[in-house]
Amino acid sequence: MLECNIDDMNPEFYGYVMEKGLEAGALDIFMVPVIMKKNRPGILLSVLCEEDKREELEQFIFMETTTLGIRRYAVERSVLERKVLRIRTKYGVVGMKVGFLGGKILKYAPEYEDCKEIAENFHLPLKKVYEDIHYAMKKYIESM
Amino acid sequence: MLECNIDDMNPEFYGYVMEKGLEAGALDIFMVPVIMKKNRPGILLSVLCEEDKREELEQFIFMETTTLGIRRYAVERSVLERKVLRIRTKYGVVGMKVGFLGGKILKYAPEYEDCKEIAENFHLPLKKVYEDIHYAMKKYIESM
Amino acid sequence: MLECNIDDMNPEFYGYVMEKGLEAGALDIFMVPVIMKKNRPGILLSVLCEEDKREELEQFIFMETTTLGIRRYAVERSVLERKVLRIRTKYGVVGMKVGFLGGKILKYAPEYEDCKEIAENFHLPLKKVYEDIHYAMKKYIESM
Amino acid sequence: MLECNIDDMNPEFYGYVMEKGLEAGALDIFMVPVIMKKNRPGILLSVLCEEDKREELEQFIFMETTTLGIRRYAVERSVLERKVLRIRTKYGVVGMKVGFLGGKILKYAPEYEDCKEIAENFHLPLKKVYEDIHYAMKKYIESM
Amino acid sequence: MLECNIDDMNPEFYGYVMEKGLEAGALDIFMVPVIMKKNRPGILLSVLCEEDKREELEQFIFMETTTLGIRRYAVERSVLERKVLRIRTKYGVVGMKVGFLGGKILKYAPEYEDCKEIAENFHLPLKKVYEDIHYAMKKYIESM
Amino acid sequence: MLECNIDDMNPEFYGYVMEKGLEAGALDIFMVPVIMKKNRPGILLSVLCEEDKREELEQFIFMETTTLGIRRYAVERSVLERKVLRIRTKYGVVGMKVGFLGGKILKYAPEYEDCKEIAENFHLPLKKVYEDIHYAMKKYIESM
Repeated sequence: MLECNIDDMNPEFYGYVMEKGLEAGALDIFMVPVIMKKNRPGILLSVLCEEDKREELEQFIFMETTTLGIRRYAVERSVLERKVLRIRTKYGVVGMKVGFLGGKILKYAPEYEDCKEIAENFHLPLKKVYEDIHYAMKKYIESM
Repeated sequence: MLECNIDDMNPEFYGYVMEKGLEAGALDIFMVPVIMKKNRPGILLSVLCEEDKREELEQFIFMETTTLGIRRYAVERSVLERKVLRIRTKYGVVGMKVGFLGGKILKYAPEYEDCKEIAENFHLPLKKVYEDIHYAMKKYIESM
Repeated sequence: MLECNIDDMNPEFYGYVMEKGLEAGALDIFMVPVIMKKNRPGILLSVLCEEDKREELEQFIFMETTTLGIRRYAVERSVLERKVLRIRTKYGVVGMKVGFLGGKILKYAPEYEDCKEIAENFHLPLKKVYEDIHYAMKKYIESM
Repeated sequence: MLECNIDDMNPEFYGYVMEKGLEAGALDIFMVPVIMKKNRPGILLSVLCEEDKREELEQFIFMETTTLGIRRYAVERSVLERKVLRIRTKYGVVGMKVGFLGGKILKYAPEYEDCKEIAENFHLPLKKVYEDIHYAMKKYIESM
Repeated sequence: MLECNIDDMNPEFYGYVMEKGLEAGALDIFMVPVIMKKNRPGILLSVLCEEDKREELEQFIFMETTTLGIRRYAVERSVLERKVLRIRTKYGVVGMKVGFLGGKILKYAPEYEDCKEIAENFHLPLKKVYEDIHYAMKKYIESM
Repeated sequence: MLECNIDDMNPEFYGYVMEKGLEAGALDIFMVPVIMKKNRPGILLSVLCEEDKREELEQFIFMETTTLGIRRYAVERSVLERKVLRIRTKYGVVGMKVGFLGGKILKYAPEYEDCKEIAENFHLPLKKVYEDIHYAMKKYIESM
């Protein structure tokens, strides 16, 4: 985990940093609003990456932000076995991230980008698309 | 100003709500993290719009979020006279939002999307692009 | 809407203030983390109430918090027509908040306390209980 | 320390997760509002536990939340020697958490649940109950 | 109440804005971390002032921040009758803000700057200074 | 990195803790708003320090805050080579923090305190002072 506190950067840059950092190989990037000395509302920028991407991402952070120092510490990760299934719905085929525990389906969630595209194409609320796809998925599981 | 507190919605929907709400005519949309009853981390969703867009945007919020109620109150606005100038830089022509007070330039900021495009095309840090364009703008003003 | 900024109170009191304030007739109470002068992390406490409860709730806020001043401004509210339906599920009868627009069901959400009780009694994840009840509700709607 | 970022879960579940997680043996659980990719307001859920509770709590987090991965890293802890004293007050006996450094009382705080009960029974502001109990404790210490 | 959302300013400026804004006559200034479009962590800057200071403070905000627009709405205020008493303590005389309701003391709090000075001069934890002064004040009230 | 969660302390103390903690040798101190059990808005206080300052700063935290326990974990740091240059501007000489990568200037930022002093002495917006000094610095670099 790479972390740095930033209190002197135009916030417009953060969207760019997240987008490009993920493209550059970060596993995850997120921001935490923090309160720093001299009444400054800063950002704690966190970048999760594999060890072999570390140097490249540190370089990236130094290039794209105002920070002069980056902290790091090792984290271990427990992850569910996961697959993306393609399920058939009334809107067409939709990706479904599925998490397994002990070989059994523990949880699932539709792919945001797929749902967004459906919402746009069918002029439906995104919320309704999620509901319908959850419903289809549940029906599919019950039928197994 | 329209406001609603949401404590029971999948956060994946917010990006969509902001994007589509701005397309639907909102002047601004932003989110405030709040703490609600029963230890729930909620979101105060704020939608700023002209009075004649209000009903449409309320409808939009009811359709796309889980909220059952929307608050509203009138706000007045003081705005700087503003223009978008096109200035010539070494990277090409770039949009510059300029705010005037009493007919004089008070502040300016380059268009984010223009800078982003330059950063991508020239393989430069976005931060450097902003610096260079601020520099060009300042030089231009000094020369006036 | 009543609001006050608090930067000198033991945060243990907030849970109590929310609980008792809702009992005292507030429609909603929530907290926003704010940054105040002298590097103080404060709380903007918001209490929504009907006009005829205002004085009582202001008194309550003065009694139970450290604030010396309360701001207020009027808000109007647009609310969906709503009902709590009792629906039959495999876990028993569950309350379902339903929001209507133009006489048609627009959205629904199970009562948290009912789901929590089921999760505890059946030793199930709360998440699964919600999923099952959403599924039952959707099936019920489809069958109408 | 176990941590996971959650950006696709109904916030109503968090109160339940905290309550049940503490019952399941976590030393502490807290939530940090974070900003995640695609304009999502997420939550960084932190669960502090002893090493021998880790697997059980990871299982718990996987069951009760939507996360597909949990990070962990070891933390050491410095703790004050602490005791809960029972002190006599005009409202009856009240628990007082006391922290010692080098065998001397360094700090103390009344038990929230005791004070809450007193406030309810005596129809007093919670704030006043804390003040009175702090006063009684201080008098007691001065008299030692 | 004046409000503006800022998503393109160096956060180092906020401390200065708060300090100078209060000197310029604002009753209160505070910042709320918000999430704005394009994944930008912004700040909602709130400036509370009397109507007759409004134009001057709007001017101030336009000069010292990057914002191009300021919203405003009227708020009414309920305030406790308040006085600053000077009370004698073992550390010397200390200011005490006292809030009255119906002519009776409802709450009190020592002046932060006085306590800070004592902590520095006597090499005591600030926390202990507050405790001692609260104790002295309470004793004084009991003796009245 | 030292961390503790605080949910029962007067927020007025944090400014003091930050100021004195930095004087006592901390490299950085910042606060994160967190949500704790029982609907308490707490603060995660983070203190970054060298290993040889750790015990002293833990002592400091125990003395000046209400916490009964402090967590710690080791972090490594990557830092840019940095220097403070004194550059000549139309307002006089100003400190400029400069970060180098591979011996070349990668980034620079004027010293806040210097700029603040100029803004006050010349009755200029702080924002304008920063712009002018950035401009002077850029001109200086271009001329090298």
